[in-house]
Amino acid sequence: MTPPPAPGPADLITHDPADLVVTGCTALTHDPRGGIVFVDDATIVVRDGLIASVTAGGPEHMTATGPEHSTAAGMEHIDGRGTVALPGLVNCHTHTPMVALRGLAEDLPAHAWFNDWIWPVESNLTERIVGLGARLACAEMIRGGVTTFADHYFAMDAVAAATEESGLRAVLGQAYFSSQGPEGRAASLDFALRLRGAADGRITTCLAPHAPYTVDEPDLAATAALARDHGLLVHIHAAENREQTDNSLARHGRTPVEVLERAGLLDVDLLLAHATGLDTARDLPVLRRAAERSGGRVAVASAPRGYLKFGWDTTPVRALREAGVPVGLATDGAASNNTLDVWESMTLTALVQKYVERDPTWLTARQALDHATLQSARAVGLGDDIGSLAEGRRADLVLVDVTGPHTQPVHDLAATLVHSARSADVRTTIVAGRVLMRDRELLTLDVPSLVGELSALLPELVDRSHGKRIQEYEG
Amino acid sequence: MTPPPAPGPADLITHDPADLVVTGCTALTHDPRGGIVFVDDATIVVRDGLIASVTAGGPEHMTATGPEHSTAAGMEHIDGRGTVALPGLVNCHTHTPMVALRGLAEDLPAHAWFNDWIWPVESNLTERIVGLGARLACAEMIRGGVTTFADHYFAMDAVAAATEESGLRAVLGQAYFSSQGPEGRAASLDFALRLRGAADGRITTCLAPHAPYTVDEPDLAATAALARDHGLLVHIHAAENREQTDNSLARHGRTPVEVLERAGLLDVDLLLAHATGLDTARDLPVLRRAAERSGGRVAVASAPRGYLKFGWDTTPVRALREAGVPVGLATDGAASNNTLDVWESMTLTALVQKYVERDPTWLTARQALDHATLQSARAVGLGDDIGSLAEGRRADLVLVDVTGPHTQPVHDLAATLVHSARSADVRTTIVAGRVLMRDRELLTLDVPSLVGELSALLPELVDRSHGKRIQEYEG
Repeated sequence: MTPPPAPGPADLITHDPADLVVTGCTALTHDPRGGIVFVDDATIVVRDGLIASVTAGGPEHMTATGPEHSTAAGMEHIDGRGTVALPGLVNCHTHTPMVALRGLAEDLPAHAWFNDWIWPVESNLTERIVGLGARLACAEMIRGGVTTFADHYFAMDAVAAATEESGLRAVLGQAYFSSQGPEGRAASLDFALRLRGAADGRITTCLAPHAPYTVDEPDLAATAALARDHGLLVHIHAAENREQTDNSLARHGRTPVEVLERAGLLDVDLLLAHATGLDTARDLPVLRRAAERSGGRVAVASAPRGYLKFGWDTTPVRALREAGVPVGLATDGAASNNTLDVWESMTLTALVQKYVERDPTWLTARQALDHATLQSARAVGLGDDIGSLAEGRRADLVLVDVTGPHTQPVHDLAATLVHSARSADVRTTIVAGRVLMRDRELLTLDVPSLVGELSALLPELVDRSHGKRIQEYEG
Repeated sequence: MTPPPAPGPADLITHDPADLVVTGCTALTHDPRGGIVFVDDATIVVRDGLIASVTAGGPEHMTATGPEHSTAAGMEHIDGRGTVALPGLVNCHTHTPMVALRGLAEDLPAHAWFNDWIWPVESNLTERIVGLGARLACAEMIRGGVTTFADHYFAMDAVAAATEESGLRAVLGQAYFSSQGPEGRAASLDFALRLRGAADGRITTCLAPHAPYTVDEPDLAATAALARDHGLLVHIHAAENREQTDNSLARHGRTPVEVLERAGLLDVDLLLAHATGLDTARDLPVLRRAAERSGGRVAVASAPRGYLKFGWDTTPVRALREAGVPVGLATDGAASNNTLDVWESMTLTALVQKYVERDPTWLTARQALDHATLQSARAVGLGDDIGSLAEGRRADLVLVDVTGPHTQPVHDLAATLVHSARSADVRTTIVAGRVLMRDRELLTLDVPSLVGELSALLPELVDRSHGKRIQEYEG
């Protein structure tokens, strides 16, 4: 949050000085039905971390909302000419500390990736490495226009501290396996209750059972009860690939989604990561009924880059849309995805969906922007708070430069954003009205010192000579 | 080319002053078998537009190659610390002036895209629009680390002038249809002979029949004869999608590749754009025999983004590799691809190939870099001149910043480049020893003035009220 302005002359003549005003941008807004409307020459006024107004009009409008905005003490003015203002992107499923493993285990199938590399290396994790990785991840996400991330990992107190320091908004869950015994679930609940509302409300929390193949049915049922009792979102990996679904059918006679349903998890707020292995004939009716019961509070996070890389099917976005299930965009961890670039996830979602449906008219640029904004906000349980530049929502926004040669000329701004612009075109990132990056300069995190500290710890992190792993992947 | 240095004291004490020295970078080089070798703390010396040496070593080495390099008049020194030096990227198939149509015709199937939008709009093209579009495209490519592009379009004198002004290297061909009569082919030959070796040798030329479905067999056979007589490369669209192959079989009883073979085009240097619709059982043996006869001088340019967008199959890279056919990377025109980002083509080639082959171990990061360097250079007929940082090759190179949070830490530099780095990480672009972009600042082209001039012409460009089109797409 921007510190309150020191009392000054402007405060004497107005009750509501703006914290921040962006002028001259094109603003991506939504009509009442959720359709995307671009407002040219927009002025965005931010007060107390919330969007106070988004209006068309240049200097005349500035006068109308009060000339004090350009002079008020503590007020920040950003010249947005040449940029598009969008709701900050949401990374609906990631494991931020895994940036420390970026590029470590490449060109491998999932079994070898988990069992030979990731899970042995994760047995070396320390709070310090988690904290440094999370900070480096936050730096990357701020530079890429992400303002909220949903993180599912271990040592989450360290991630919460990184979130606080970075200025980002986050939905955090402490992961657990049944192999940890009841302590795993208890620690996840303890974290969720302790950290709820931390960082001036920028942190919300959830329960984070790892997956139906690593958390047994009694644990899943207990998790559903805790979620109901405490009003918590549950964030879980599910049907990550088709093999997991086939194995679940062989072991339990039920798909992963059916396992979750039986455990009662489809009756609470639920975020499913990946869902590329859905058995659409069996699972879609289950998800449709759950979406109807809950008003769409079962959602899926899709991270299409990693699915391509592992040679998996992708999330069936069209079928989920028909079932009323929001699909948010995600990157997964950098150990599989290589970056935390949600902008790329948006672009790849558009491209891959056209390809797998063999339909170039499906998943238009505007639909991709809908996934990136309203659907992602809903997926992480913040559908009323973020995801749209509208009065009363959190002032989480990014300014994207569209003057570069690769984005000109502009015949269709939605296409420019989805298919020509890149995360590197994000010039300014704002969360709760506080500027976290201005003209590509990070204001809350120091990348060279983070990289220096983290690099010194890499030899101990990547040592696999101990032969241990945190879990066995059978899928 | 860098102007020769003015005579100065350094010239009095050495016969070979360097034009340019890059120090402290990591250099991507190739071993004698074409494998990729990264040289740490490398010094790259450029003389007369050629690479004079790439050697490991810091300041000591600088002394060894002559301390005069740091003082020679006209010598330019670039501090490459924090960057990787790679051979400049090659855009093996594009239509640069089509950047003017970027985003104009979105979310459409190929028939509507061609017949309702692109071919009507192209009937409005003027030399001035072509020249402005080509300049804007060159600006985009320089910023994205492209140093050579193969362009296949109309009004190519205007593209040649843009190439000259931009400082890029290019392989240019004047496109033609049989519907133009013999004048089309004659103009293509005239262009190829007139412009060959222009721009201080940075321009090479080719013959550019449009495609087997728009150029008839007598014209194709005549083109093959001209290519043989004049030692020219032929650059042609072929088997752009499966529908074209099916239509060709229905009309001629032959696939597009068999049509080209019958016309004699597989006996000359040939660059096939796309080839996503190959009938692998029929076409691969034909291409394998041609590759064996010619030593691999039949090649394919692959632009994977557009194939996803149209919902087409992708280029069968693995089968082509097994047939000995080089596959270079491309973007096609921005009207279908939205950008001229060859870096993205490299990344997408890796991702999409893993997906379509359902094999995460295929198309490793190093294989992707091989396509981006040696295979692309061969594809455009410059296999001995560019594509590798080796003594005697053209000094076409880019410096890529790997210090950003999204590229750190580095466990595997090949993976960092292919899966984490982005075109926006290219800091410096050098062609024939001349710096065209330094620290992301373009030195040869003025983007705001190009965009301003082009924008004023867009209303006349996009007017389709005349009901004309340059050609009818049946595929």
